[in-house]
Amino acid sequence: MMSFLKCTRSALGIWQIQSSWIKKRVWLETTAVLPHACSVCSSVRWKSTAANQEKEANYQFCNARWRQMVLGVITGTGAILAYGLYRKQEAEPKPETSVDSEAQQSYPVYTRQDVAKHKTMESGIWVTYKSDVYDITNFVELHPGGDKILLAAGGALEPFWSMYAVHKQEHVYQILEEYKVGELSPEAAQEACDVTDPYGKDPLRHPVLKVNSLKPFNAETPAEILTENYLTPNDLFFIRNHLPVPEVDPKKFSLEIKGEGLKSIQLSLRDLQTKFPKHTITATLQCAGNRRSDMNAVREVKGLNWGSAAIGNAKWTGVKLSDVLEYARLPANTDAKHVQFEGLDKDISGTPYGASIPIRKALAKDGDVLLAFEMNDEILSRDHGFPLRLVVPGVVGARNVKWLSKIIVSKEESKSHWQVNDYKGFSPSVDWNTVDFTTAPAIQELSIQSAITSPSKDERLSSDLDEITVKGYAWSGGGREVIRVDVSMDGGQTWHVADLSEMKQNEGQAWAWKLWELTVPMPKDEKSLEIISKAVDNQYNVQPDTVAPIWNLRGVLNNSWSRVNVTIK
Amino acid sequence: MMSFLKCTRSALGIWQIQSSWIKKRVWLETTAVLPHACSVCSSVRWKSTAANQEKEANYQFCNARWRQMVLGVITGTGAILAYGLYRKQEAEPKPETSVDSEAQQSYPVYTRQDVAKHKTMESGIWVTYKSDVYDITNFVELHPGGDKILLAAGGALEPFWSMYAVHKQEHVYQILEEYKVGELSPEAAQEACDVTDPYGKDPLRHPVLKVNSLKPFNAETPAEILTENYLTPNDLFFIRNHLPVPEVDPKKFSLEIKGEGLKSIQLSLRDLQTKFPKHTITATLQCAGNRRSDMNAVREVKGLNWGSAAIGNAKWTGVKLSDVLEYARLPANTDAKHVQFEGLDKDISGTPYGASIPIRKALAKDGDVLLAFEMNDEILSRDHGFPLRLVVPGVVGARNVKWLSKIIVSKEESKSHWQVNDYKGFSPSVDWNTVDFTTAPAIQELSIQSAITSPSKDERLSSDLDEITVKGYAWSGGGREVIRVDVSMDGGQTWHVADLSEMKQNEGQAWAWKLWELTVPMPKDEKSLEIISKAVDNQYNVQPDTVAPIWNLRGVLNNSWSRVNVTIK
Repeated sequence: MMSFLKCTRSALGIWQIQSSWIKKRVWLETTAVLPHACSVCSSVRWKSTAANQEKEANYQFCNARWRQMVLGVITGTGAILAYGLYRKQEAEPKPETSVDSEAQQSYPVYTRQDVAKHKTMESGIWVTYKSDVYDITNFVELHPGGDKILLAAGGALEPFWSMYAVHKQEHVYQILEEYKVGELSPEAAQEACDVTDPYGKDPLRHPVLKVNSLKPFNAETPAEILTENYLTPNDLFFIRNHLPVPEVDPKKFSLEIKGEGLKSIQLSLRDLQTKFPKHTITATLQCAGNRRSDMNAVREVKGLNWGSAAIGNAKWTGVKLSDVLEYARLPANTDAKHVQFEGLDKDISGTPYGASIPIRKALAKDGDVLLAFEMNDEILSRDHGFPLRLVVPGVVGARNVKWLSKIIVSKEESKSHWQVNDYKGFSPSVDWNTVDFTTAPAIQELSIQSAITSPSKDERLSSDLDEITVKGYAWSGGGREVIRVDVSMDGGQTWHVADLSEMKQNEGQAWAWKLWELTVPMPKDEKSLEIISKAVDNQYNVQPDTVAPIWNLRGVLNNSWSRVNVTIK
Repeated sequence: MMSFLKCTRSALGIWQIQSSWIKKRVWLETTAVLPHACSVCSSVRWKSTAANQEKEANYQFCNARWRQMVLGVITGTGAILAYGLYRKQEAEPKPETSVDSEAQQSYPVYTRQDVAKHKTMESGIWVTYKSDVYDITNFVELHPGGDKILLAAGGALEPFWSMYAVHKQEHVYQILEEYKVGELSPEAAQEACDVTDPYGKDPLRHPVLKVNSLKPFNAETPAEILTENYLTPNDLFFIRNHLPVPEVDPKKFSLEIKGEGLKSIQLSLRDLQTKFPKHTITATLQCAGNRRSDMNAVREVKGLNWGSAAIGNAKWTGVKLSDVLEYARLPANTDAKHVQFEGLDKDISGTPYGASIPIRKALAKDGDVLLAFEMNDEILSRDHGFPLRLVVPGVVGARNVKWLSKIIVSKEESKSHWQVNDYKGFSPSVDWNTVDFTTAPAIQELSIQSAITSPSKDERLSSDLDEITVKGYAWSGGGREVIRVDVSMDGGQTWHVADLSEMKQNEGQAWAWKLWELTVPMPKDEKSLEIISKAVDNQYNVQPDTVAPIWNLRGVLNNSWSRVNVTIK
């Protein structure tokens, strides 16, 4: 525990890089050094080997209708951007600083904290791109994408631009250059380390994240942008920490594997990366408490008040747990029933976070359980488990142990608090006086889920609109594929079938969510709409209609219909 | 098709045996010859090797509370039976026929059809036990179990006595003997064969079955007795036929195995029974249309109007499909994706019933897919697939092909009508004008299900009762174990957790249902109750609240909450 106290700093959700000088447009290197947010106090270094932005997978939408829609949106936005550029040229005098002269110009230097103070029209809207600082206050009203630009206020543009690929055009960079007002400070943290705070060494996070708890840090993607991209950008991916984020020296890192019928072995990161075939999957992770706020609205529950974005979808690269267990000579006829995991994150008594999964899942040929070191082609960030995390596709987030340090093959489940006395479901009749955690199984594979991300709750829509578009995500645990999403515009009286993004996934290995959307004529003569989504997976599991009958004291497993009420004015 | 026409007879749900002389108390031999219901026209003979009644597995209720309840019920019923005997002796003069003199007495001989005519108090209530006929009209009001005895009226007592084991006592046999009025005819069918009816050779069935369709024959267990026994007695097990029941000579029977990467082979019944290890599982089979009547109540659907008893649970014995495919040298690295099956039941054009399952399920070590020749330790009856059927535990009934004759390993799904244009689920918005069967996957593993079997719908209960007991079943597909059943007595406002029968099942292989019950104080000052059950499986899949949102044009997959309205008088 003491190691946490060497160097601490308050982590107020401010986006800051405190490592050595970062060159312009070297975003990936920026990401790669993120693990060392408190570099003054740490000698840890980790050289990025991750692929660059250009390598981002260009996922194909196989469903022709969906593809056409997406192409339409992109083409349309491109046209609007060009128009935005034209309007900008009309509205403003030629800037004094030309692109050509930029190299010669000297700019003031700002920290990320300085930038974070400029989030309102009053203070000015500042953003960063790579190592530069821009004051885009005057561009806001010209932005073809409207208010959405404000999501980046006080922080980095990159995660949004990886969502809205239309920005990656030369003329957009040119527009941006014209608003440059400074450069990011290359220096380390200027704040004093707070040696009394175990969370003082937590990394800084993107300010757009919706924070549910600071210590431990728990935050979700803003729902309105969650489904803009099939792959959730790393910096926008929901963060669910149970304890302070450990600082790990990757050179000294060692993974221990032991247990039932095994000789204990230790593997370094280099061992993992060189002794085993690399394997990549795309998988959705969902917190058991996703959509808990709807349960809280029924009756108070214990837990973080998550909205509907404690879920995200990413490419994970690492090695297969089954390969590593084979290497550790796990006997084929083992009578072990579970594989336990421990993280490097520890509570004040030194007890680590822990979890286990059934050995059936760990060894299943098509189980795809990974020891992952990359997320969306980048080195794992500290918040997502640097340098190594478990990814158990199809299984609740809580078993996807981050900062993985120990693997123990066993006849028993993990004895961890989070395995035996948490993350379980109960009848609505069970309260904290009557609950008996031994009567319920630990949550593993999750059930069918869907949520509406647009329009947002209590949104006001104009009755002049001809059409209304509803968007969201749908996912099911256990590798079950989502086959249909039904959407109702009238509180469940009638239903429409939404268009699904079609990413090819093998049977039983549909680990990734599907995004969906539906456009229907705007209902006439209605003053309000109750919009509902419900999904069906390939085993025809369906979502229950209402929250109250699945209410449980921990507020987990809310997969009731997603409901959004909108007003028409 | 012509072979069906050689010998036919109307099959009106009358229970009849037309084989050679059946000795007294030789119930199992009786069952064994059932495949030859039309023996005048058939030379088929099949010697029973099945275990006798005494071998019936004595399943242990592991949950102590449940066990105590069951023991209580049995003990209580035993006492009541003794009282019933006493009352009978008081009420009636000594019968002239004593048990001792029975051997010398000569009785009239009746056919099963004769017996079936005596089902009312007016005509007299006749039943059979083994090869004897009893007129129990005067015993009905003395029967400790009340009206339930009338379920056997016109038919055999055996399936009920295997449910209510308390009857298997010497003094019960003695009571019964006193009502003997005749013996069953040893002779063959006296009715003329109807050569024009393809269903003319269908077997006779127990008259207690609730018939949904005669040709093809489809009938379910009366709901009120469905959950009296963990194993559903064979003669009361729901029957779902798509076509006439084929007549099969077991000596000539041959199973063909062929397809992708295989050399075609043929296996006789003897080959199957001698070349492969025998394997027994207990598994629940459920028709996709179970509980369709509740969907019909919302809006008319196409399909048999099943109640909640198109489901049953049995012990199945046979050989593993995976062993047989290995014997047929299926390559380990096969690129086949499906295993197709054909039955010997054929439509008028000669097209057989067919289905397929994913090869993942067929080859899974713990998949337990069986080629079964025994059901509850008896040779399969003709209605349940004699001599060989597929049992795919955890998967919808429709893929459990009966009268199995062909296995085809393939890259493709079965092209059978029932695979591609039936047994699929759709949105409530899809009707027969808009349906596109290619857009939905064939139903395989079923979702979580439960139903209330007692009290029955619209039952009237006395407000004088101190307590009310609710009973039912719960099951989930895919080997997922039912972990909880919630019961509401007030239309879903509050919930109680029911007691579950606990049969030990391996993780991922929970193929069998759980019976459940709940006893609560009778709600006071209520004139009616809406009783609800909803179950949860070990992946926390839950049942949806209502029927309408999962309504589909074929009326399949109704797993909404089970609701029973009762009146309190």
